Amino acid sequence: MKQKVVSLGETMLRMSPLGSTRLDQTNNCETVFGGSEANVAVALATYGINSVYVTKLPDNAFGQAALNTLRQHGVETSRIIRGGERIGMYLLEGGYTPCSNICTYDRKHSAIADADPAEFDWHEIFRDAAWFHFSGITPALSPSTLQICEDACRTAHEMGLIISCDVNYRSKLWTMDAAAKAMQKLCRLVNVLIVNEEEAKVLGIDVTNERLTDHAAFTDMCTCLRETYPAAVIGSVARINLATAVKGMLCVDGQIYESETYTLHIKDPIGAGDAFSAALIYGLLNNEPAHSLVNIATAACAIKHCIKGDFNLVSMDEIRGFAAKAGADAVKR
Amino acid sequence: MKQKVVSLGETMLRMSPLGSTRLDQTNNCETVFGGSEANVAVALATYGINSVYVTKLPDNAFGQAALNTLRQHGVETSRIIRGGERIGMYLLEGGYTPCSNICTYDRKHSAIADADPAEFDWHEIFRDAAWFHFSGITPALSPSTLQICEDACRTAHEMGLIISCDVNYRSKLWTMDAAAKAMQKLCRLVNVLIVNEEEAKVLGIDVTNERLTDHAAFTDMCTCLRETYPAAVIGSVARINLATAVKGMLCVDGQIYESETYTLHIKDPIGAGDAFSAALIYGLLNNEPAHSLVNIATAACAIKHCIKGDFNLVSMDEIRGFAAKAGADAVKR
Amino acid sequence: MKQKVVSLGETMLRMSPLGSTRLDQTNNCETVFGGSEANVAVALATYGINSVYVTKLPDNAFGQAALNTLRQHGVETSRIIRGGERIGMYLLEGGYTPCSNICTYDRKHSAIADADPAEFDWHEIFRDAAWFHFSGITPALSPSTLQICEDACRTAHEMGLIISCDVNYRSKLWTMDAAAKAMQKLCRLVNVLIVNEEEAKVLGIDVTNERLTDHAAFTDMCTCLRETYPAAVIGSVARINLATAVKGMLCVDGQIYESETYTLHIKDPIGAGDAFSAALIYGLLNNEPAHSLVNIATAACAIKHCIKGDFNLVSMDEIRGFAAKAGADAVKR
Amino acid sequence: MKQKVVSLGETMLRMSPLGSTRLDQTNNCETVFGGSEANVAVALATYGINSVYVTKLPDNAFGQAALNTLRQHGVETSRIIRGGERIGMYLLEGGYTPCSNICTYDRKHSAIADADPAEFDWHEIFRDAAWFHFSGITPALSPSTLQICEDACRTAHEMGLIISCDVNYRSKLWTMDAAAKAMQKLCRLVNVLIVNEEEAKVLGIDVTNERLTDHAAFTDMCTCLRETYPAAVIGSVARINLATAVKGMLCVDGQIYESETYTLHIKDPIGAGDAFSAALIYGLLNNEPAHSLVNIATAACAIKHCIKGDFNLVSMDEIRGFAAKAGADAVKR
Amino acid sequence: MKQKVVSLGETMLRMSPLGSTRLDQTNNCETVFGGSEANVAVALATYGINSVYVTKLPDNAFGQAALNTLRQHGVETSRIIRGGERIGMYLLEGGYTPCSNICTYDRKHSAIADADPAEFDWHEIFRDAAWFHFSGITPALSPSTLQICEDACRTAHEMGLIISCDVNYRSKLWTMDAAAKAMQKLCRLVNVLIVNEEEAKVLGIDVTNERLTDHAAFTDMCTCLRETYPAAVIGSVARINLATAVKGMLCVDGQIYESETYTLHIKDPIGAGDAFSAALIYGLLNNEPAHSLVNIATAACAIKHCIKGDFNLVSMDEIRGFAAKAGADAVKR
Amino acid sequence: MKQKVVSLGETMLRMSPLGSTRLDQTNNCETVFGGSEANVAVALATYGINSVYVTKLPDNAFGQAALNTLRQHGVETSRIIRGGERIGMYLLEGGYTPCSNICTYDRKHSAIADADPAEFDWHEIFRDAAWFHFSGITPALSPSTLQICEDACRTAHEMGLIISCDVNYRSKLWTMDAAAKAMQKLCRLVNVLIVNEEEAKVLGIDVTNERLTDHAAFTDMCTCLRETYPAAVIGSVARINLATAVKGMLCVDGQIYESETYTLHIKDPIGAGDAFSAALIYGLLNNEPAHSLVNIATAACAIKHCIKGDFNLVSMDEIRGFAAKAGADAVKR
Repeated sequence: MKQKVVSLGETMLRMSPLGSTRLDQTNNCETVFGGSEANVAVALATYGINSVYVTKLPDNAFGQAALNTLRQHGVETSRIIRGGERIGMYLLEGGYTPCSNICTYDRKHSAIADADPAEFDWHEIFRDAAWFHFSGITPALSPSTLQICEDACRTAHEMGLIISCDVNYRSKLWTMDAAAKAMQKLCRLVNVLIVNEEEAKVLGIDVTNERLTDHAAFTDMCTCLRETYPAAVIGSVARINLATAVKGMLCVDGQIYESETYTLHIKDPIGAGDAFSAALIYGLLNNEPAHSLVNIATAACAIKHCIKGDFNLVSMDEIRGFAAKAGADAVKR
Repeated sequence: MKQKVVSLGETMLRMSPLGSTRLDQTNNCETVFGGSEANVAVALATYGINSVYVTKLPDNAFGQAALNTLRQHGVETSRIIRGGERIGMYLLEGGYTPCSNICTYDRKHSAIADADPAEFDWHEIFRDAAWFHFSGITPALSPSTLQICEDACRTAHEMGLIISCDVNYRSKLWTMDAAAKAMQKLCRLVNVLIVNEEEAKVLGIDVTNERLTDHAAFTDMCTCLRETYPAAVIGSVARINLATAVKGMLCVDGQIYESETYTLHIKDPIGAGDAFSAALIYGLLNNEPAHSLVNIATAACAIKHCIKGDFNLVSMDEIRGFAAKAGADAVKR
Repeated sequence: MKQKVVSLGETMLRMSPLGSTRLDQTNNCETVFGGSEANVAVALATYGINSVYVTKLPDNAFGQAALNTLRQHGVETSRIIRGGERIGMYLLEGGYTPCSNICTYDRKHSAIADADPAEFDWHEIFRDAAWFHFSGITPALSPSTLQICEDACRTAHEMGLIISCDVNYRSKLWTMDAAAKAMQKLCRLVNVLIVNEEEAKVLGIDVTNERLTDHAAFTDMCTCLRETYPAAVIGSVARINLATAVKGMLCVDGQIYESETYTLHIKDPIGAGDAFSAALIYGLLNNEPAHSLVNIATAACAIKHCIKGDFNLVSMDEIRGFAAKAGADAVKR
Repeated sequence: MKQKVVSLGETMLRMSPLGSTRLDQTNNCETVFGGSEANVAVALATYGINSVYVTKLPDNAFGQAALNTLRQHGVETSRIIRGGERIGMYLLEGGYTPCSNICTYDRKHSAIADADPAEFDWHEIFRDAAWFHFSGITPALSPSTLQICEDACRTAHEMGLIISCDVNYRSKLWTMDAAAKAMQKLCRLVNVLIVNEEEAKVLGIDVTNERLTDHAAFTDMCTCLRETYPAAVIGSVARINLATAVKGMLCVDGQIYESETYTLHIKDPIGAGDAFSAALIYGLLNNEPAHSLVNIATAACAIKHCIKGDFNLVSMDEIRGFAAKAGADAVKR
Repeated sequence: MKQKVVSLGETMLRMSPLGSTRLDQTNNCETVFGGSEANVAVALATYGINSVYVTKLPDNAFGQAALNTLRQHGVETSRIIRGGERIGMYLLEGGYTPCSNICTYDRKHSAIADADPAEFDWHEIFRDAAWFHFSGITPALSPSTLQICEDACRTAHEMGLIISCDVNYRSKLWTMDAAAKAMQKLCRLVNVLIVNEEEAKVLGIDVTNERLTDHAAFTDMCTCLRETYPAAVIGSVARINLATAVKGMLCVDGQIYESETYTLHIKDPIGAGDAFSAALIYGLLNNEPAHSLVNIATAACAIKHCIKGDFNLVSMDEIRGFAAKAGADAVKR
Repeated sequence: MKQKVVSLGETMLRMSPLGSTRLDQTNNCETVFGGSEANVAVALATYGINSVYVTKLPDNAFGQAALNTLRQHGVETSRIIRGGERIGMYLLEGGYTPCSNICTYDRKHSAIADADPAEFDWHEIFRDAAWFHFSGITPALSPSTLQICEDACRTAHEMGLIISCDVNYRSKLWTMDAAAKAMQKLCRLVNVLIVNEEEAKVLGIDVTNERLTDHAAFTDMCTCLRETYPAAVIGSVARINLATAVKGMLCVDGQIYESETYTLHIKDPIGAGDAFSAALIYGLLNNEPAHSLVNIATAACAIKHCIKGDFNLVSMDEIRGFAAKAGADAVKR
């Protein structure tokens, strides 16, 4: 399998008032770049994958800084289109608990949201690629980006790429109905699906109130999903035990695999799901056995909680080490 | 004369990469609020004037923080309309010389730019007010804000308020032609004009290449301006001596007054012109004699260069002290 | 009921060595302003109440910055008297556990501690007001402030205002005996009392060793208090479960109401009790039903633990949202 | 007993990317100085002991800053030799859990590692001293430092000083075999031993998998150690309960003493073991009874977890207060 | 000559809003310690002199941090008395020009201002000392400190110490009349006087308007001073050329010596005069020839302008290097 | 001409105490990466050149962060060899004047200094390259790096690349004699030489005391150099007018070109010479006319003084704009 992975999404400027304050309390914001698929692309590049990221960024200092950040972490950025009006932004203020945050979007009129689908030549972009990844955030941005996703998925499917999708439902961007209509169509081409309970509803699956970290609930959801969608792999990850640990589930060709329970320490929960997705993609590309796959993906997710910013800047060696040790711990104590 | 002054303009979030770096070099930005007329409003409130500021700000954390900053400095904010899509922003990166800066605007679609003129009830806003101030930046934002400025000027004129305008031409916002058309109309109602050489062209005056700190050049400009416009007071201020000093000129009823030369130290040049305008308005409201007026306005401008942020957070006592001492210095050395 | 609330207290400069270090380890301190009643005043203004704060602040840069901070958050500051020698200060160094701190006071000779009771014209201050709030810290500062509190309570009572008092005993400021003598007299005019176990002793009530989060213990205390004091409402809040949650109790006309248990995350515990008081006052002013009252007050207290600084800078909407969700969680899990 | 304690070790520059980030994410590092024995020396000076620290530091800005930091905290630095090539450094990046960290050493060729044993005149250094302390890190640095440790131990023993050693095994510095060979020899002169499970192996003791916080396991280890080594006092401390508490064990003349369980809050776990050692030395010098000794040493260790940097900058009064309160808590709840 | 120098003065906490802002604009202050005589003591210790500093500091975290800062830089602090109410503080806000600053004192009731003269046993303190230094700030603090200075000067004189005094007139602390009365008495025992034009008036000398960097003006002043006062050495230093350079003058036994002109760069002008005094004392103690003396003292003063904080943390080697190079430059260009 | 440029050098970690303090005064250092040739490589990549940088970096967090910084700015890093012991470091403390700094090297034993010449396959590295650049710092590091430079120059020469060399003499790294021996040999293969007065001596040219910004002095030096060395282009740049401006000189095929005088503002002078070299290389690659070449190279050098860090992060458009405006200024004023 060729190890070139293409991700498509929006890279935003994230402004976080310094010291976990509110904007009203400080004259300093931490300014970093991120976004669901960019996070996946950076993690893949860090693991040594040939990771290509596709978006549109304005031809100004904001756009250049975003591109340079991706380049810094080894992502191939030559396919990024420059132009448009502005970069999307959001304000991330500290929340009441370590895993909640107050988020104020200012992402309308962003370059990618207003991009013309004709700007992207997917046959050219996908040349020599093995994999295409996107999340449900991208089609939610605008009719344009929905069209861009549809074009990309169709072309990827035609060219034989594996397609992965993190359903990532965002109620601030679109309604459940709009999401359902768009995502149910897109997911008919998806080979690797990442979903949680709420997102299963986007795909038309009425799961119970149980969390997907429950074996039976996850099994039920996968059975239902597999009736409608072609995905050979379905993954899910969630925080458990009052958010002091994380647990992942995987369904590979109908077989269910459960991860160890990995304790975590929350410094920055943003991008934890993307860390799961990236490690899952890496493992599948490298034919990792399924029981190991669910552990490294979940361990990557656990680790991300203590890395500041959106990106999970750790090597696969560190992830494997953490995964192994936690497993050992689980045995020993 | 009633001492209530109403200013109209846009308050923006200003992002400056920390430590005079470029956005690409840091994960931290200084985030403050400012804007030409807001700077005037804050200075007036600091001098003890009943200073009312009018704008539209989004009903989110950005808008609230902007409003709170104005309130912190004593500005009356109850006339600010809440709503719209976003707050205007700009990135201010350090320049090659202490008075140049690299500015990247992201102010399209701001709440005030997209505001409906009908949202502002000027008869109500101007009740009990003595003065209305705006700058040439506000009508440049959009056809809406041009209409809002026209409405405000017409009503202010009808209600007998004094109207001051800092021509403040910004080539990034509109062309010279568009500015000329709009400003020449608005300035026919203006009583106090603040202009520099380039801005005289906006008003249709063809000044020589000489800087307006030259007595003859300033006199010529004022003669020309007074032929067309009703302004009883015309002011101008500029950095001189390789930007190590500042000098102001004033024309009151045809009489020319020249300030002392005030040495300065540049930490943050943004808002230096607004400091001149505010002190001028304050002095006129308090019937300051013209030779004193030009000195406190120019001293205020000099001081602002060493105050971080947009606002000139100094008291009139401090300004008078600085104005007096610099004069003494000029005599002694 | 008229919604103007007057609070009386001391606003101090709080210096916290940056990064939770000791003063000896850093050249940088976070410098913010706060104080029990100021915290209540800011919270009330944030909830939309007409919140007037009364104190005396020096006529220097410290005093002005303190006043501006209050003004920033919407507090009416025109009743603050300027003058006196200095602002009170305290050094707050990080403690051994997230809810302990090492506090070094430098508040002697502060403007309010040395103020002359005759400087405060309570009839004028209370005009149009519905409520007067103070805490047991203010009378502890000096004989002057004790007299000021007595004057304020007597006048408020005469003018028909509701009076609330957070007993807030500080052993560093006065002895239990001195506190008992002063507070037992003052509390005979108080309508809403906020107390904890230790503070009940200040009021002469010998409670058991049980924490007041125990239903029986709180009921006993209220029975005793109601025999001596006229308070119609008695509230208490405390951290439980190794300081990972908070629980509040309320006695309204003899009826006991218990809050949900709200989990919390400690970034800054200072002002958590004041957040409870402010939400309680807000709810009583708005005739909130008692079972809801105890929940929003306790939720406000829980939220404050993750807001830096003294002030609980959250809206009532955010508090209600948190209160509701926590309740739902309690049901669901 | 004379209260002069001499410690020997390496002081390193510790670089920690600001805000718990990775070096790759920031342009700012916290730069402090520390090292196992320096931490002990600073704590002892803070407790009022005449604390002399011996090392070699380069004669440059790094060396001077290190020396000044020790001097700031009251350590006697006149025995520090200046010269050599460089100071040892290490990069400390935030870990996945609050008590793990990613450590990158850059300590080769340091002044102390390359020092000549002849530079240290131990008879002179130990004049009037009562105690000599070192850890297993120092002999691990180089053959030179092993020789220096042997010289120091032999001379200290001859001159009648008490010798304490924290075994402190570091697998990044030497193999278990090399450590065993060196430490088993050195420890034959040691009077006070601080060890954990893994370090017992360095001394040739095959302990079970149980943690030493287990009474039986600790007793077994001490019995074994006492067969081979002359140490009259053996101490051990470890985090328990998912690293939310700490517990210490002490063996004095064969008698086992167990500490209270002290809850902790992890801001910076570096130097927690050194805090235990220092308080143990202090207590032994002051003839503290053994049950009190184990409590203050363990309380000191618990407190250190919330002090930034390597040094436990708290007074013995604070430690006793914390020790007492925790004990009370343990009774009350 | 014995090289032990005793300095007496007040060490204050200096708070400077971060980034040259005003207190009202930031939540962060730089907090360092300093004071005229402490600055001299630190510089002397840095040059290798046995430098003893005498003051009174409160027995709290502020006092300990101040003492530790002095100790860090090698000052002997064992003569510092602990106790009293508080440490003196001042707020230092950025000024309009690089050498002006806005200073708000909060130094009343400080431990040293309220100290009892009987607390200082000068015979004991001066044992083995060669030199006593103080400035005119210390007697200005209170009648107590005036008495302490008189006691110290009388004892130093009796014990044969050289006495140096920087007249350092501060109009915020006392009137010219009060200063004249006190300083004229004290200076009758002073051997080395540091004065500027204004301070000459304190000593009753009516100098012309010329700056003392003028040869004739300095000569005149010295002639007058030498008629009344016994000082064998008189020094003066001042910024010239729009504060871009500094020049010093020295009168040794009636002979006038003029320094080179040293260009400077102003980052922090506080303590520049103290740097001059310290280098002068050092040079006199080491029998430096007068023409070299005036150069190293003036070079030290020039260098201090670019060192942050109060202390001139540079070695005598660095000063000599700078002094030599500047001289060479003056020749070459 | 093919536009691929290969640079060879050492990338170091630069530690600068925050806020222009000394290491002894702060716990925070700015940590950035740089080095003469890396600075050239980054500037070239920023101008759109295919810029390849060759060095050896350790396979640890320091090495990875250095590599990522280069990658962030678009440098091709695939030729960087990973391994060796450590990264070179230096401490950069603020100097007495804006263009002096106190530099403490800790660069011994760095990966590149200890690299084996056989690790670099120059035929492979130079494939498709048009240009090879190095500075005199690289051969100064060790006999190994001298050999590596010789290998690279010989191969580049054989393969027909243009070779540029900035003589960059560093007396802290080698003696004038050692430098002369090495550089005189290397420069016999160099086509583009960058030198200043002192460096001319390295090449055996005895220039007068005049600065090279003097036309006659520069002409003389070039005449001499051209007798011995084959360089077709010789460039030199220096600060003039008390370091408030910069001026460059160029000799192309014996013809002398003088730049405009560009005023500058010093925030960070490190890398200003490298900015000159990079713009010179860019201009020569693009056949810029010589009079324009000397202006953009000198303007680039002027601009660098106000960019923090080692890298001149500005586009060629910005440089041309600055060059043009300064020229205009020179005419107009």
